[in-house]
Amino acid sequence: MARHEFTPTVFYNTFGSHPPAFHVDPGDEIMTTTVDARGRDQHNDELAGRPNPQTGPFFVSGAEAGDTLVLHLDSIRPNRSLGWTTGCLAPNVLDFDYEPEFDDEVDLAEWKVDPTAGTVTLTTPENRLTGKSFELRPMMGTVGVAPDIGEAISTSTSGPHGGNMDYNRIKEGVTVYFPVFTEGALFFLGDGHALQGDGEMDGTGVEISMDVRFRLDLIKGHSIQWPRAEDEEYLMVCGNVRPLDQAVQHATTEMVRWLESDYGLTAREAHMLLGRVSEYDIGNMYDPAYTMVCKVPKAVLISLGLSS
Amino acid sequence: MARHEFTPTVFYNTFGSHPPAFHVDPGDEIMTTTVDARGRDQHNDELAGRPNPQTGPFFVSGAEAGDTLVLHLDSIRPNRSLGWTTGCLAPNVLDFDYEPEFDDEVDLAEWKVDPTAGTVTLTTPENRLTGKSFELRPMMGTVGVAPDIGEAISTSTSGPHGGNMDYNRIKEGVTVYFPVFTEGALFFLGDGHALQGDGEMDGTGVEISMDVRFRLDLIKGHSIQWPRAEDEEYLMVCGNVRPLDQAVQHATTEMVRWLESDYGLTAREAHMLLGRVSEYDIGNMYDPAYTMVCKVPKAVLISLGLSS
Amino acid sequence: MARHEFTPTVFYNTFGSHPPAFHVDPGDEIMTTTVDARGRDQHNDELAGRPNPQTGPFFVSGAEAGDTLVLHLDSIRPNRSLGWTTGCLAPNVLDFDYEPEFDDEVDLAEWKVDPTAGTVTLTTPENRLTGKSFELRPMMGTVGVAPDIGEAISTSTSGPHGGNMDYNRIKEGVTVYFPVFTEGALFFLGDGHALQGDGEMDGTGVEISMDVRFRLDLIKGHSIQWPRAEDEEYLMVCGNVRPLDQAVQHATTEMVRWLESDYGLTAREAHMLLGRVSEYDIGNMYDPAYTMVCKVPKAVLISLGLSS
Amino acid sequence: MARHEFTPTVFYNTFGSHPPAFHVDPGDEIMTTTVDARGRDQHNDELAGRPNPQTGPFFVSGAEAGDTLVLHLDSIRPNRSLGWTTGCLAPNVLDFDYEPEFDDEVDLAEWKVDPTAGTVTLTTPENRLTGKSFELRPMMGTVGVAPDIGEAISTSTSGPHGGNMDYNRIKEGVTVYFPVFTEGALFFLGDGHALQGDGEMDGTGVEISMDVRFRLDLIKGHSIQWPRAEDEEYLMVCGNVRPLDQAVQHATTEMVRWLESDYGLTAREAHMLLGRVSEYDIGNMYDPAYTMVCKVPKAVLISLGLSS
Repeated sequence: MARHEFTPTVFYNTFGSHPPAFHVDPGDEIMTTTVDARGRDQHNDELAGRPNPQTGPFFVSGAEAGDTLVLHLDSIRPNRSLGWTTGCLAPNVLDFDYEPEFDDEVDLAEWKVDPTAGTVTLTTPENRLTGKSFELRPMMGTVGVAPDIGEAISTSTSGPHGGNMDYNRIKEGVTVYFPVFTEGALFFLGDGHALQGDGEMDGTGVEISMDVRFRLDLIKGHSIQWPRAEDEEYLMVCGNVRPLDQAVQHATTEMVRWLESDYGLTAREAHMLLGRVSEYDIGNMYDPAYTMVCKVPKAVLISLGLSS
Repeated sequence: MARHEFTPTVFYNTFGSHPPAFHVDPGDEIMTTTVDARGRDQHNDELAGRPNPQTGPFFVSGAEAGDTLVLHLDSIRPNRSLGWTTGCLAPNVLDFDYEPEFDDEVDLAEWKVDPTAGTVTLTTPENRLTGKSFELRPMMGTVGVAPDIGEAISTSTSGPHGGNMDYNRIKEGVTVYFPVFTEGALFFLGDGHALQGDGEMDGTGVEISMDVRFRLDLIKGHSIQWPRAEDEEYLMVCGNVRPLDQAVQHATTEMVRWLESDYGLTAREAHMLLGRVSEYDIGNMYDPAYTMVCKVPKAVLISLGLSS
Repeated sequence: MARHEFTPTVFYNTFGSHPPAFHVDPGDEIMTTTVDARGRDQHNDELAGRPNPQTGPFFVSGAEAGDTLVLHLDSIRPNRSLGWTTGCLAPNVLDFDYEPEFDDEVDLAEWKVDPTAGTVTLTTPENRLTGKSFELRPMMGTVGVAPDIGEAISTSTSGPHGGNMDYNRIKEGVTVYFPVFTEGALFFLGDGHALQGDGEMDGTGVEISMDVRFRLDLIKGHSIQWPRAEDEEYLMVCGNVRPLDQAVQHATTEMVRWLESDYGLTAREAHMLLGRVSEYDIGNMYDPAYTMVCKVPKAVLISLGLSS
Repeated sequence: MARHEFTPTVFYNTFGSHPPAFHVDPGDEIMTTTVDARGRDQHNDELAGRPNPQTGPFFVSGAEAGDTLVLHLDSIRPNRSLGWTTGCLAPNVLDFDYEPEFDDEVDLAEWKVDPTAGTVTLTTPENRLTGKSFELRPMMGTVGVAPDIGEAISTSTSGPHGGNMDYNRIKEGVTVYFPVFTEGALFFLGDGHALQGDGEMDGTGVEISMDVRFRLDLIKGHSIQWPRAEDEEYLMVCGNVRPLDQAVQHATTEMVRWLESDYGLTAREAHMLLGRVSEYDIGNMYDPAYTMVCKVPKAVLISLGLSS
């Protein structure tokens, strides 16, 4: 397994079959950087434009349509101290007739991110939150592959290929699985967040540039329909579509398939298990496509003697 | 503060302005029982019919429209060992074109509930889950008050008055707040569950009869728009409506109002705080009205020096 | 067949099992009046309060749960000249981030309704529409029966029982079919409109009091699931629920059932026919429950040699 | 104004910034052909694959981002007699728990299309519809331009760029307006239908290849947000997104903008006018993005003395 350092110079605003930026073999370790959602790097220099410019694509040798791409996200670390957010929740997550009465104007709020202390602290504007420390929870808002039939999909949204799912458990240590639609899989990542509430309800997650380290692997001839993930606690499936109702449908159905194919459950057992222990998170309710996540606790699977 | 034991004899299938079953003063402790979703009691005798027959209504002296009713749910304990569920996820939580291939037929699945051991165990049908112990997590599927303008709303659904929210954090120790729409508030409860996954995706939660102990209190002249709740970990707001998108809107908007009115935040601060730390649960995605819950961790409020 | 005149004195804000206001036999002709959405009569005297106070309920002798109630709406005529509307579209029918820039304030707009001339004319406020004549198209916003299991449902919304469907083809000459849930069916009507766009997108339809003449009939032992209607041009089914997607599902499914049971089509034929000729209208997109209508042109049925 | 005949040899499955197939000047007349949804031409030869292969793109000289492209659809004529459909309504337009009981199996149904007689007639399978004539109503399911920011969007769906809107008033004589996102606009068309019910509820519209004749024009420096159209009867706006609720929001908001910018109405007047006379059609409820159309009758505008 080789180790690579890759310094991106071209950034993409769509997930598509763009020319590979870097070729890797399955299992190789890649160290690279991502710019923030507005295209700014560790020096706050603007290298690319909106939305969510991506590092990549990484061409994985041997990957073909019908395979599954495996992402091991080994390290995510903010590489500058300045993060930013909006100052208000999005209109689509609030009542139709709600009109906030703000007593100030906020274009962008600024936050100081301190990886050593593990904190995120509001610096601007000045209000009751300013100077108070929140826990740093780095995550990648955007991970995905080139979509099917030659589509090029905006990095502001998501789909079966992944994309801007903004799910805050896509963090250090997570393993993510993607369907492969095209030769080389063509993996992209970007849109790092230092701290984001569920749903990215204000459209931002303390946006920041990142140093990332990851490995890409392949499961040959194994086909999935939606991005799956796992960490120490959970199996997770992301359903990416608007509205939330349908995102739940995709996530739940794919979780049934996962339990059947990898854990040996019958349809009946998978249904009965989810009825008892399913959990759900909102990944993103800001994008054109929303993300709902269906989770199953691994502890339950273990207690049932089930393993993949 | 008086302590009462109340043995229900009449059960209601609607939340409505029915004749009070029992009168209490604010702060009184009430011990009573609830039948299961099919109307069966601790002896599995059928005392009432579907859907979700309710114990109550409890008339709280002094309660008037515009007040807030406070429920302290002090104890929920299954009072029999037999629980039941369906055997399949609901069609509306699965892909439109998904058709499960079941290799058996299940009308009702049966579970053994053991409060002493703290376990829930599948007994029928026979499959890979049978005999395996899940953790007992008792909760009340249905809590609520008489709705506004004389409506009588089926106990199979929910709304601003609460109702069949099926939220699995409505468990022992929780405090729930309801808008009061009518004299006496007219509180009902029922539909106990021994163990339910998020969303009650199979329409059931190991349905069982319960011994419950609770207190009802009043906040006079304090008006809320949606059911709120809190426990040691979280502030919670339930938005009850179909589709999920709108349920999120109601829950998030009401949480903004709560943070403003009780925690002294400005609209700006409330928006920025939720963008950083909001969490969401699905209460119910089976009823005519779905339930989405917006949560804020109390630890964050404390670390910010905020209290109600 | 008797002819009755009924002058309402009590008005209801819920569709529920209220005491019958009047008893009729199937086929009897009833002449009565309805107040407007704010409860004002032909003299603009306020007889009742919001929302949408209803005339009725009419108890139909012989009606039992499982029957179908048939409404022949023989005449609807505004009985005063003053109508009113809001001055703006509802926020839920406009983009989340759209904010209208109004250069005036309008609480209620007033319209002159002239049944002889067949016109509706804006009188207040003063703008480019003022004094211009629109075609008078009288309709009943609200028609329905007492719902199932003793529910009492606000007259601001709709459901399987009908209710506030605000469908502008519920006009003179239409026949409407309702499921009967309770003894006597308990029919209500109200909320007359002089002119309403599809969807009642501004929440009003030139609200006005009406003289109405109608007959109620029964189809014994014939059960339907959603309100159906027909006029000279169309078979129509109303699906009443939020969101629109699901309202379409209810309306389309019930239309398939109608074509199967009454026109002798197989499921295959009904599906293939709807694929070629189905039409859809939005009844109401303002209420808690939206109304979508599935239509089939009668001319097509006739050309296919199909009759009920 | 030149007249061109263009014989397509390459067909695209995405709306994207593909190499121009043909260059035209504004106002030029173009005669060309389209293959059916499966890529079959007038001889039923398969020239391209699914979904909905498009003829084009047509590069319009002078078109730049921020302009409006004008399509005059002068003639649509089926160029073979064989059309096909599915045999069943899509699961997403039917109740979640509805399961059709078909007594036959239908892969593809076949229809004889006769432009001279103006009829469409089912030939296979054999059932009560077979041999009965429906009225021929040719339309183009798919018309659109290259989307923004280099996206390439599947021809199975739609968006601000148009695409697979399947709206049955996109027929001979209609004028359609599209936002221009890229140099040359890059116009595509395909997916001809001989007869389609509202919503394309069975996913097909008697799919057929077409001879088409059209002109493309430009409105320089005039920017619109969603496809607009007009014919002799109506102004129309297409909102393309899932769910229907949001598609209505886009269509209605864009109609307000159109009435303001081209017909000189204030926001107030536009709102009040739509409240009285708006109509809505479902274009498509089968694609990933649904299409809802907001319509205003031109006769009303004329009676109000309004013109563009």
